Amino acid sequence: QRLFYSASHEEIKTGATADIYFVKTMEILNHMGLARKEVVAEVFPRKSGIICGVEEVLNLLKDKDVEIYGLQEGESFSPKETIMRIKGPYEEFAIFETALLGILAHSSGWATAARECREAAGDKVMICFGARHVHPAVAPVMERAALIGGASNASCILAAKLLGKQPSGTVPHAAMLIAGDTISVARTYNEIMPPDSPRIILVDTFKDEVEESLAVAEALGRALEGIRLDTPSERGGVTKELVYEVRKRLDQKGYDYVKIFVSGGLTPDRIRELSEAGADAFGVGSYISGASPIDMTMDIKMVEGKPVAKRGRIPGIIENPRLKKLK
Amino acid sequence: QRLFYSASHEEIKTGATADIYFVKTMEILNHMGLARKEVVAEVFPRKSGIICGVEEVLNLLKDKDVEIYGLQEGESFSPKETIMRIKGPYEEFAIFETALLGILAHSSGWATAARECREAAGDKVMICFGARHVHPAVAPVMERAALIGGASNASCILAAKLLGKQPSGTVPHAAMLIAGDTISVARTYNEIMPPDSPRIILVDTFKDEVEESLAVAEALGRALEGIRLDTPSERGGVTKELVYEVRKRLDQKGYDYVKIFVSGGLTPDRIRELSEAGADAFGVGSYISGASPIDMTMDIKMVEGKPVAKRGRIPGIIENPRLKKLK
Amino acid sequence: QRLFYSASHEEIKTGATADIYFVKTMEILNHMGLARKEVVAEVFPRKSGIICGVEEVLNLLKDKDVEIYGLQEGESFSPKETIMRIKGPYEEFAIFETALLGILAHSSGWATAARECREAAGDKVMICFGARHVHPAVAPVMERAALIGGASNASCILAAKLLGKQPSGTVPHAAMLIAGDTISVARTYNEIMPPDSPRIILVDTFKDEVEESLAVAEALGRALEGIRLDTPSERGGVTKELVYEVRKRLDQKGYDYVKIFVSGGLTPDRIRELSEAGADAFGVGSYISGASPIDMTMDIKMVEGKPVAKRGRIPGIIENPRLKKLK
Amino acid sequence: QRLFYSASHEEIKTGATADIYFVKTMEILNHMGLARKEVVAEVFPRKSGIICGVEEVLNLLKDKDVEIYGLQEGESFSPKETIMRIKGPYEEFAIFETALLGILAHSSGWATAARECREAAGDKVMICFGARHVHPAVAPVMERAALIGGASNASCILAAKLLGKQPSGTVPHAAMLIAGDTISVARTYNEIMPPDSPRIILVDTFKDEVEESLAVAEALGRALEGIRLDTPSERGGVTKELVYEVRKRLDQKGYDYVKIFVSGGLTPDRIRELSEAGADAFGVGSYISGASPIDMTMDIKMVEGKPVAKRGRIPGIIENPRLKKLK
Amino acid sequence: QRLFYSASHEEIKTGATADIYFVKTMEILNHMGLARKEVVAEVFPRKSGIICGVEEVLNLLKDKDVEIYGLQEGESFSPKETIMRIKGPYEEFAIFETALLGILAHSSGWATAARECREAAGDKVMICFGARHVHPAVAPVMERAALIGGASNASCILAAKLLGKQPSGTVPHAAMLIAGDTISVARTYNEIMPPDSPRIILVDTFKDEVEESLAVAEALGRALEGIRLDTPSERGGVTKELVYEVRKRLDQKGYDYVKIFVSGGLTPDRIRELSEAGADAFGVGSYISGASPIDMTMDIKMVEGKPVAKRGRIPGIIENPRLKKLK
Amino acid sequence: QRLFYSASHEEIKTGATADIYFVKTMEILNHMGLARKEVVAEVFPRKSGIICGVEEVLNLLKDKDVEIYGLQEGESFSPKETIMRIKGPYEEFAIFETALLGILAHSSGWATAARECREAAGDKVMICFGARHVHPAVAPVMERAALIGGASNASCILAAKLLGKQPSGTVPHAAMLIAGDTISVARTYNEIMPPDSPRIILVDTFKDEVEESLAVAEALGRALEGIRLDTPSERGGVTKELVYEVRKRLDQKGYDYVKIFVSGGLTPDRIRELSEAGADAFGVGSYISGASPIDMTMDIKMVEGKPVAKRGRIPGIIENPRLKKLK
Ligand SMILES: [Zn+2]
Ligand SMILES: [Zn+2]
Ligand SMILES: [Zn+2]
Ligand SMILES: [Zn+2]
Ligand SMILES: [Zn+2]
Ligand SMILES: [Zn+2]
Ligand SMILES: [Zn+2]
Ligand SMILES: [Zn+2]
Ligand SMILES: [Zn+2]
Ligand SMILES: [Zn+2]
Ligand SMILES: [Zn+2]
Ligand SMILES: [Zn+2]
Repeated sequence: QRLFYSASHEEIKTGATADIYFVKTMEILNHMGLARKEVVAEVFPRKSGIICGVEEVLNLLKDKDVEIYGLQEGESFSPKETIMRIKGPYEEFAIFETALLGILAHSSGWATAARECREAAGDKVMICFGARHVHPAVAPVMERAALIGGASNASCILAAKLLGKQPSGTVPHAAMLIAGDTISVARTYNEIMPPDSPRIILVDTFKDEVEESLAVAEALGRALEGIRLDTPSERGGVTKELVYEVRKRLDQKGYDYVKIFVSGGLTPDRIRELSEAGADAFGVGSYISGASPIDMTMDIKMVEGKPVAKRGRIPGIIENPRLKKLK
Repeated sequence: QRLFYSASHEEIKTGATADIYFVKTMEILNHMGLARKEVVAEVFPRKSGIICGVEEVLNLLKDKDVEIYGLQEGESFSPKETIMRIKGPYEEFAIFETALLGILAHSSGWATAARECREAAGDKVMICFGARHVHPAVAPVMERAALIGGASNASCILAAKLLGKQPSGTVPHAAMLIAGDTISVARTYNEIMPPDSPRIILVDTFKDEVEESLAVAEALGRALEGIRLDTPSERGGVTKELVYEVRKRLDQKGYDYVKIFVSGGLTPDRIRELSEAGADAFGVGSYISGASPIDMTMDIKMVEGKPVAKRGRIPGIIENPRLKKLK
Repeated sequence: QRLFYSASHEEIKTGATADIYFVKTMEILNHMGLARKEVVAEVFPRKSGIICGVEEVLNLLKDKDVEIYGLQEGESFSPKETIMRIKGPYEEFAIFETALLGILAHSSGWATAARECREAAGDKVMICFGARHVHPAVAPVMERAALIGGASNASCILAAKLLGKQPSGTVPHAAMLIAGDTISVARTYNEIMPPDSPRIILVDTFKDEVEESLAVAEALGRALEGIRLDTPSERGGVTKELVYEVRKRLDQKGYDYVKIFVSGGLTPDRIRELSEAGADAFGVGSYISGASPIDMTMDIKMVEGKPVAKRGRIPGIIENPRLKKLK
Repeated sequence: QRLFYSASHEEIKTGATADIYFVKTMEILNHMGLARKEVVAEVFPRKSGIICGVEEVLNLLKDKDVEIYGLQEGESFSPKETIMRIKGPYEEFAIFETALLGILAHSSGWATAARECREAAGDKVMICFGARHVHPAVAPVMERAALIGGASNASCILAAKLLGKQPSGTVPHAAMLIAGDTISVARTYNEIMPPDSPRIILVDTFKDEVEESLAVAEALGRALEGIRLDTPSERGGVTKELVYEVRKRLDQKGYDYVKIFVSGGLTPDRIRELSEAGADAFGVGSYISGASPIDMTMDIKMVEGKPVAKRGRIPGIIENPRLKKLK
Repeated sequence: QRLFYSASHEEIKTGATADIYFVKTMEILNHMGLARKEVVAEVFPRKSGIICGVEEVLNLLKDKDVEIYGLQEGESFSPKETIMRIKGPYEEFAIFETALLGILAHSSGWATAARECREAAGDKVMICFGARHVHPAVAPVMERAALIGGASNASCILAAKLLGKQPSGTVPHAAMLIAGDTISVARTYNEIMPPDSPRIILVDTFKDEVEESLAVAEALGRALEGIRLDTPSERGGVTKELVYEVRKRLDQKGYDYVKIFVSGGLTPDRIRELSEAGADAFGVGSYISGASPIDMTMDIKMVEGKPVAKRGRIPGIIENPRLKKLK
Repeated sequence: QRLFYSASHEEIKTGATADIYFVKTMEILNHMGLARKEVVAEVFPRKSGIICGVEEVLNLLKDKDVEIYGLQEGESFSPKETIMRIKGPYEEFAIFETALLGILAHSSGWATAARECREAAGDKVMICFGARHVHPAVAPVMERAALIGGASNASCILAAKLLGKQPSGTVPHAAMLIAGDTISVARTYNEIMPPDSPRIILVDTFKDEVEESLAVAEALGRALEGIRLDTPSERGGVTKELVYEVRKRLDQKGYDYVKIFVSGGLTPDRIRELSEAGADAFGVGSYISGASPIDMTMDIKMVEGKPVAKRGRIPGIIENPRLKKLK
């Protein structure tokens, strides 16, 4: 019995996730003897952004008899720019249109949001914490897109593994709540984690952030890499004044080596603001994971070497010198 | 070699998509001898909406030693309402928090958008055409959520199969472009499709919609179930005046049995407007598929029978008489 | 019996269209022995604009014993600038104030709107199609003002004749609707019109504009000067995407010599936008014809060589070096 | 030699003000043998308003072989409502479309604005002072439309004569400026005007309005019908406080029979405000005369008994039970 | 040597704070023999509000030969309503106009703001904490006005004394900062204050408000009357969520008798919001103390029994049946 | 018996206007033996502005054992900048916090508004007429602050005396209303005032401003220094057009030496506008007197040499090189 509604790799690869009308189309074209007409189709986005998902598209069409031209993962695109061109007998790729567009739309949406965060964070650490907002089947897809867009690391174990990284993360409020105390959790963390696992401790669970930050700093001494501020909105969230004060108060006690990691409802604007106030690293959740897909459209532009187009579009290929032959 | 970055059912079920910090948490709590403390955790949403994903959550925790209370698929919820409660030794479910929240957040976001479209469409047909905007791994998840929210049917083959439905769809512009003509495609469709497959023909590919509608109606006669208007934005999109005129002109020629199916950038407002002008059925794409997940939070509220909470939250269970015992 | 309420030239010239209070004023001043006092009166506008109507004003006062100074037809003016000065015994021109101000106000309003369209159209053809929005008695006045403001030509036969031009225009939807077909009208037009009458054919009556444009181009070949797009608002109006596509599709078929003439709700902003998208000529209707008159005020500023003014105005002449002696 | 660019009644009646394209249309249809096809054409407005100009339209087509159905002068209409229907051989009325639409558009625009002022003024006197803002050829047309819309009277001599009224008006600032004093003008006016000509004296030329009002009231005693406030914008215009104070101060001196007539930039809102403050009569200028024409469209809807329409319109007659047979 | 620039009671009483032009006026009128003309002057406000300062005005004119009519302390007034009328020889009160208007304007401004806070607070305690924002010379005047407007009490010692109240207040952050700890200050307060001095302790100086609230409640037990939340804006200020949580957490520990007193940037809107969330008392600062004076005007309306007025005002008394004879 | 609620200098100096909580604080600290701890307190403003009140603060603490550092009267400050620092045993100044902050807040608010008017007026005369809008006890404080901010002079007699100036002012409407005429008042003024008292006559009481200006100019000849325009809002207030016209009409009659003084609802924007139109001097009322105090906060930052701060503030002194030692 099936546990989840998500599609397996095999289902995707065999076209099971296609829209039914592509199947109907192929039946009709077969009946009319047109199924193997050579067509050229072009993909364009509705908005500007960062392309992502190209590798999966190539795998999707790996053993099909088509040529593929496209931008490369992480490149930027403009509205209506041709970002991919596919050439071959129509039946080779017709039923994959749904999957192909979905891969590009969803991943490009996430990568674009991550790029905005990266630009706000400059050279500082910026990690995607958004896995908890998307279906687990696409959590690694989303985190990969975030890395293509510019995230420093992923918090999802599978995503990190697939991308050859150590996953990144601290300890959530749950640990403190069960232990009943922040300091004992911090000490245990310090005791048992491997030396290369950075000691970053969440300080807003029970006490005022400044008080807890100083207590943790005292408890762990030089071993402490950073504290994490994740103040809930009910307490005003993480403000720039809070970051500034924590920085100053840590410095006054000699803990100037302790980094400040912030999270909670971050957006590019808030990243910029908190960075200026002294934050050293950023955990971004729903700004990346909740980004809408960037709608993609595939238009047939040539049939057997002749330009065609539906009303509203220009017949024939729209040249784009940035396209590379990918297959 | 792996084709896609999406997680398989096994990877989800074994916790591979967890955020790393839950693994670290368990290591610490184990070390402190606290891993099997009995906790009660509650899930609440940030915004109002329609719950979806409960079935997958139950499968995720099927063989774990926990009690689960929750709302039922398709029920509505308010901001900060407790929508699920889990009780059991913390190590039974700790590492599934990421997956569990992701399932609920993503599916509830889609279901909520579909519900809005359903309310706009009243008793008329409203179908989700959004598979092309999301990663194929979650296309069936999204379409299931749309059905929970109120969509009449799905266009994705796998989704329809899993939900025990016939997938729904017409024929895209591609068929007309390759055949070079709408009428011949319409005739072939009529000829070869099984009798119970509704004849709905797209009429905006080459000619003015009114001209093509009348030509198709003449070609297929009583066999024609409906025409589909999907006018591109470059030609002003599908306006209420267009729907009204097509209706009137069909009626004047005696084709009052021909239904008008509309698609292209539909939103609840546009559904309402076009419905009033005479549209009979609606194909909704990115309004549903591009809906942002509804962020969910899981808070630990009891530990070994004692109320706890982090700063900003109220310790102890928040009663909700609408919760049912689900496991 | 009188057919229309409009005033004849004789009625205007003899003061029949004066406001009654100027007649009363003269009776009083006569009784007081002041009717032939020498006065200087100045005219100023409430807003900036383009002056028009000066020639008619000079005709109005042709045989009166007054000196007139003023700006010249088509010059621009600022708010409250003195644009005309009249000097002479008051009874010479008192009762003509109503007519004089009306001539300047109405014509300057139209000329100013036409100037804005001209600036938007640059060197391209811009024709006034507004006669259908104003009373026929002033249609030639309005079209003359449009030409002073910068229109290339007029569509009203009388206006063109009075201005020594060939009137300009294509063929309206009516011809196509009666003939039942665009191509046969186009062929007849081509057959019977004199060689110097440009072949411009309206293409949005029955079919999609692109389809009809290509059909007309094929039918008339090198004889075709241009097509006219006048898409109704019910079909989204003439958009920049439509102009761009028609241009591209004509070019692809070798009809790059065919011009694109646009009309329908044009404003300076829309002219600019459509011009950029490829439109070659513009037919402007209500933007010009519906322009409000620019209110003019005539103030008496000197009486028998002594500065006077009512409250709120400065006594005496307000010098303006741009004024020329006109009479 | 011609003095003005306005068209004479004969020019209008013989079609000289037609747009050239109707002439071309008739040449083509003649050539195709279609000129006498029986058509039904309908006229509709773009906005709601008050119809005016019907009498002139009937005169325009008096000796043509057509039937005419329409609303009656002064009735209200809605956007896109059929307000006139013409039936007959097309060549009977084709070239009169420009004039017919212009008559209706321009007069309906003015009548609609006047109706708004009438509704604001309730039962009080409201007079059109707008002749000075329009070309003298249409000043009587405009004033007639104002009366249809609800104005009490006209200030233009010819308009009043054609409509069988005594023209209405006071004496302008010019008389006072030449006489150098308000009181002597008032006395002369009183002395020489026929008994039925109401004594209304303008009081803002030289002195504060209150001071001058009381002085005029003292000079003319019971003979004084009213004073007129026309304060220039440089002195704050006519405010509701000024009207209220003038009323109170006149009453305090026993001049409660003296009416307050106001003018200067009046709009429906200002009429309402000043009426409430005590004003008894209103002179409205550019709000009426500067009203834009209400664009009218004529569509051919039947040809030889068969419904037709261009794209965007519904073929066939659009029934309107409010239409009466006018010819 | 003078310490402050504020005026003493004697200086006010002898007219030393008058505007110089009243002195000049009296010199002129004396010279003209008009100084003892009997005049009636009326005072009206520019905006609506609550009258305050009447008692001081009566003291100001106590030994002058004038009659005074007026509204009574705390009554509401409308814009331009007559709120005070003074009758007598002009030299009796001329030089007191500046002081009289200033007393009414300033006090009425403060009373009006306090009334808005009172309406927001309903029956709950609302205390003025605004003395620190105004010059100490008027701090008691301001606090008296706040009480007239509806404040429960004053924090300024002198104001309370003059009004026959016990001044109200807790202990500021300064005490905690010097003692280095909140609990020891709370214990000392409890120990040394008289029994009828309510124990209200400020809890946001060093620690999270919830933590400190519970600690104080434990330390003082049943003696504790309330805690005060005054969270600085740098920590998000006092939010409704914070009030709600403090209430719930106090209740959960059995401290449901402990009241919640809030302060810091309160406005009527915030009072309403925090009251709904559970706050029991409100300390309002700059909303009351920073309220602008309500400008007052005194117009001479009768001279020797004859109505007079300057331009813009109506001569004679403006009756107001709400006026009482005060002197 | 007390006439007014304002505090005397002695009451202020002895701490009678303190908030009660400072008294309680001292009782507690005394009991704890902490009353003479050496503290450093800093004052900062919430908004930018101009400091005023420093002299009174020094007098307030003249005989206390504290060091004081601060900005100097009239200097500008930024939000949160340290503008004053006090060092000494806490009991030396604790109870003066309320008075000290009130002095600075209120005077700085007034001085800041006056500075804005000064910047608008450039080098022209700008006088504070605001005494009538504040309590007479603080009228001289307010006028002093206005002078610090940039006013040219004060109208309040006491303020002028304390500041070593001749108070400035013309004659109010009252004099004209009692005398029944402007010219006789003007003549008397001219006759009896000392030669160095400038002859400035108010001209809007009874007649149009232009008429009265010319009459006054004729009556006083070269003795006339200026006329004052104070037109009430009921007559449109003082507009730039009025100033311009008065200037022109005075000049035309040879009175170009007569200055134009304006008053009535002036703001920096209106000062700029009227100055450009020709006004020579400005009387500003409620813009200065109605300015809200600029809230000031005093924070304890050092106790016995150790940095402290409440939550939200940084412990220790915040250096400001602009501070000077004042005591
Ligand atoms: Zn947190
Ligand atoms: Zn989130
Ligand atoms: Zn389409
Ligand atoms: Zn879409
Ligand atoms: Zn058209
Ligand atoms: Zn038009
Ligand atoms: Zn006037
Ligand atoms: Zn006007
Ligand atoms: Zn505080
Ligand atoms: Zn405050
Ligand atoms: Zn005044
Ligand atoms: Zn004022």
